[in-house]
Amino acid sequence: MAEDTQSTITYGIFNETAEYESRVALTPDIVKRLKRSSVECVIESNAGHAAGFSDEDYVKAGARIGSKDEVISQARAFGFVGRPDDELIGKLPKGSWVIGMLGSFTDQEYVNRLDKAGLVGVGIEKLPRQLSSAQSMDEMTSQNSVMGYKAVLKAADAYGSFFPMMTTAAGTIRPAKVLILGAGIAGLQAIGTARRLGAVVTAYDVRPAAKGEVLSLGAKFLDLGLDFSKGQGEGGYARQLTAEEQAAQQAAVDKKAAEFDVVITTAKVPGRKPPVLLTKAGVDGLHRGAVIVDCAASELGGNVEGSAPNQTIITDNGVQLIGAPDLASGVATTASNLLARNVADVLTHFVHDGSLVMDLNEELDNAMVVAGRDESTATKEEEK
Amino acid sequence: MAEDTQSTITYGIFNETAEYESRVALTPDIVKRLKRSSVECVIESNAGHAAGFSDEDYVKAGARIGSKDEVISQARAFGFVGRPDDELIGKLPKGSWVIGMLGSFTDQEYVNRLDKAGLVGVGIEKLPRQLSSAQSMDEMTSQNSVMGYKAVLKAADAYGSFFPMMTTAAGTIRPAKVLILGAGIAGLQAIGTARRLGAVVTAYDVRPAAKGEVLSLGAKFLDLGLDFSKGQGEGGYARQLTAEEQAAQQAAVDKKAAEFDVVITTAKVPGRKPPVLLTKAGVDGLHRGAVIVDCAASELGGNVEGSAPNQTIITDNGVQLIGAPDLASGVATTASNLLARNVADVLTHFVHDGSLVMDLNEELDNAMVVAGRDESTATKEEEK
Repeated sequence: MAEDTQSTITYGIFNETAEYESRVALTPDIVKRLKRSSVECVIESNAGHAAGFSDEDYVKAGARIGSKDEVISQARAFGFVGRPDDELIGKLPKGSWVIGMLGSFTDQEYVNRLDKAGLVGVGIEKLPRQLSSAQSMDEMTSQNSVMGYKAVLKAADAYGSFFPMMTTAAGTIRPAKVLILGAGIAGLQAIGTARRLGAVVTAYDVRPAAKGEVLSLGAKFLDLGLDFSKGQGEGGYARQLTAEEQAAQQAAVDKKAAEFDVVITTAKVPGRKPPVLLTKAGVDGLHRGAVIVDCAASELGGNVEGSAPNQTIITDNGVQLIGAPDLASGVATTASNLLARNVADVLTHFVHDGSLVMDLNEELDNAMVVAGRDESTATKEEEK
Repeated sequence: MAEDTQSTITYGIFNETAEYESRVALTPDIVKRLKRSSVECVIESNAGHAAGFSDEDYVKAGARIGSKDEVISQARAFGFVGRPDDELIGKLPKGSWVIGMLGSFTDQEYVNRLDKAGLVGVGIEKLPRQLSSAQSMDEMTSQNSVMGYKAVLKAADAYGSFFPMMTTAAGTIRPAKVLILGAGIAGLQAIGTARRLGAVVTAYDVRPAAKGEVLSLGAKFLDLGLDFSKGQGEGGYARQLTAEEQAAQQAAVDKKAAEFDVVITTAKVPGRKPPVLLTKAGVDGLHRGAVIVDCAASELGGNVEGSAPNQTIITDNGVQLIGAPDLASGVATTASNLLARNVADVLTHFVHDGSLVMDLNEELDNAMVVAGRDESTATKEEEK
C-alpha cells in the first residue's frame, strides 16, 4: 500500500502483444525513478516476465500489479514498446496519453484512429534526435545499440570457426574477417563487439561521415571506389539510394563481400522497406560456411536478398543467411532497461505540476505529438 | 587423378555417426599436410559437410572421395572423431589401424572387440600429454579450448543483458559477472573469451596450480576459504573429490555463485561421471535471468545438478540451465581443423618408411596402442 499522496499521474504498462517481443516498456529501476517525478506505475501482471522481471520485482520497486482492465481503469498515460492494437485503443479512456513507437511515418490511418478515439499519441519515432534534451529519450539509439551487439553474438554463434586468432600446438587459426554494412548506431556497436571478440572488422556506409567513425573504432572502411557523398538522410538515417546508385553500390559490395567470412547488415529504416545492401550475387559469392546476419529482414524484404525474418536459410553455396529483425528483443533485460528509461523520459517531459501538458510551440512536443494535438497551445504564449 | 607413386599408406575417413556430431576427423588442409608425409586420403562422400567442407574441397586438396565401402576397401588406417561402431568394426580389414577417442579408460570391452577383430586401436584418450612430442596430437586440449570459447558465446547469447559495460544517454549498464568453474584448458579459454566480451570474470578450480593461471589471465580467483590442495589428478584432469570435500566445496560454491549473472562449468572428465560443481541449492540461489552453461552435461549427470544434455531448462527461479555437452562440435570448422591435425599427427607418428609401425618401447606408442599390441616390439632393440 505504498500510496504517494503527491502522485497525480498514473502510468500504465501492458504485456506487449507482438510476436517475438520479449521487451517491456517499464522496468523496476524506472518505477523508482518515476516515483521521484511523482508518477505512479501500474503494470499488467507478468508484463516483465520475458525480460527477466517478476511481478514481485515491480512491487518491491513501488509499482502496483493489476489485470489488463485494472491498468486501463487506473492509468491515464500508457507506455509501449510498440503501440496499442485497435482493440486496446477502443478500451483506453478518452483523453489518456499513449507513448510508444506509433509508426506515424508510414501509418497515418493508425494515427487517425488514435485521434478519433480521443487519445493523445506521442510517437517516439518522431523524436528530434538532434536535440540534446532528446538524448535520454532516444529509443532508436538505445535499441539499435543493443541490436548491433546481439547481431555479432548471433553471427559468432552461427559461424563454424573462431572469431579471434588462436595459436595452438595444432596450428594457428586466423581471425574471422567480418564486414559490417551500415555504420549507424547498430553498425558501430557491431564493430566494437566484433573487435572485442578478436575479429578483423571492415565496415561500409553510404554516409561519408560514417568513415571517420568507423576508423576511430579501429575498423577498416570498405573502399568501393564509388561516391555516394550526398547520402545523409533526414533524422540521421540512410536515405533510400537512387536506382543507379544502388546498382553501382550493390555490384561493388557484392564483389568485395566475397572476401569476408561474416557479413552483418544493419540498415534498418523504421517502417519502410529497407535498402538492399547485398544481392543474391553477393550472397552467391560468399564461401561455404560464411554467415550473414540481416538485422533488417522483414516481410517487405531485408538488406540481403533472399533473407526472411526469423529464419535461417542455408543457401546452395553453404552460406547461413540469418534474418534477425528482433535482435534487441533477444537481449530483453538490457534493452528493456534502456527503453523504459527512454519512454519514461518522454513521459516526464510532458509532466508539469502533476499534469500532462503539451506545448506545441516546443520543438520536441510539436514533433512527437502525432494524435490529439491541442492546437490551441501552439499560439498561446506562456500561459499557466 | 593425382596419384602419388611414393604413397604407401592410405588413410580413410568416414561420416561421423554420433548424434550432435558435426566435426570431421580430416580437413582439406590436413589432406595436403599428409600428402607431404606420403599419406593418401580417401574420405566418405559428405563427411565434411557439417563442418563446412565440401567433397570438392577435399578433391582440390588431393583426396579421393568414395562411398563408405570404398573407404573401407582402399584404406588401411582410419581416423575418427569418436570411434567406429560395432558394425563398422566388423567390416574393417584385419590388421588395419583405428585412431580416435576409443574410450579405453572406461570401456575395456570395446577395446577387446577391436582386438578380436584383429585391428590396431590407437586411443588418443591415452596420449601422454606431458610429452612435448605429444603437443600437436593433443585433441583434448584443442577441443576443450574450442569448447571454452563456445561456452561463453552460448552464455552471452542466452543472457538477457550485456556482457560489456556500456554508458549511454539512457544510463549505464554494468558488465556481467561471470563465474567459470573448472580452470583447465576449457575454463581458461572461457575466461579469455568472457573477458574479451567485457565481462568481469571470476574462476575456480580445485587444483592449486590453476590459481596462478586464472590470475595471469586477468580474472579473479574465487576464494572459498577451503583447501583442496591435493586436487591434481592423473593426466592433468581434476580428480573426483571425496564426498566430504565435495560437500564442503559445494556448499561454498553454491553460496558464492549467487553473486554471479552467468556460471560456466567446464569440469568434463572423459568417459566418467563428471563432478558436481553446483548443486540444486546453488542453482536456486541465482537470480532470475541468470544463465548457467554446463559443458559436462551428460546422461550420467553434469557439473550442475538438474542439467540435461542438449536441453535448456528454465528453473522455477527463472534461471536458464543449458546442458551443452557438444560445444566443440558447434564450432565445427575450427574444431575439425585442429582435431584433424591432432589425429593426423598421431597417424604420422606411427609411419616409418611407408609403413605403420608401433614400438612399444616408446612411451607414446606404449600408452596409446590399446588394441592389437605387437608385444614383440616391446623387447626388440633397434631392429629394422
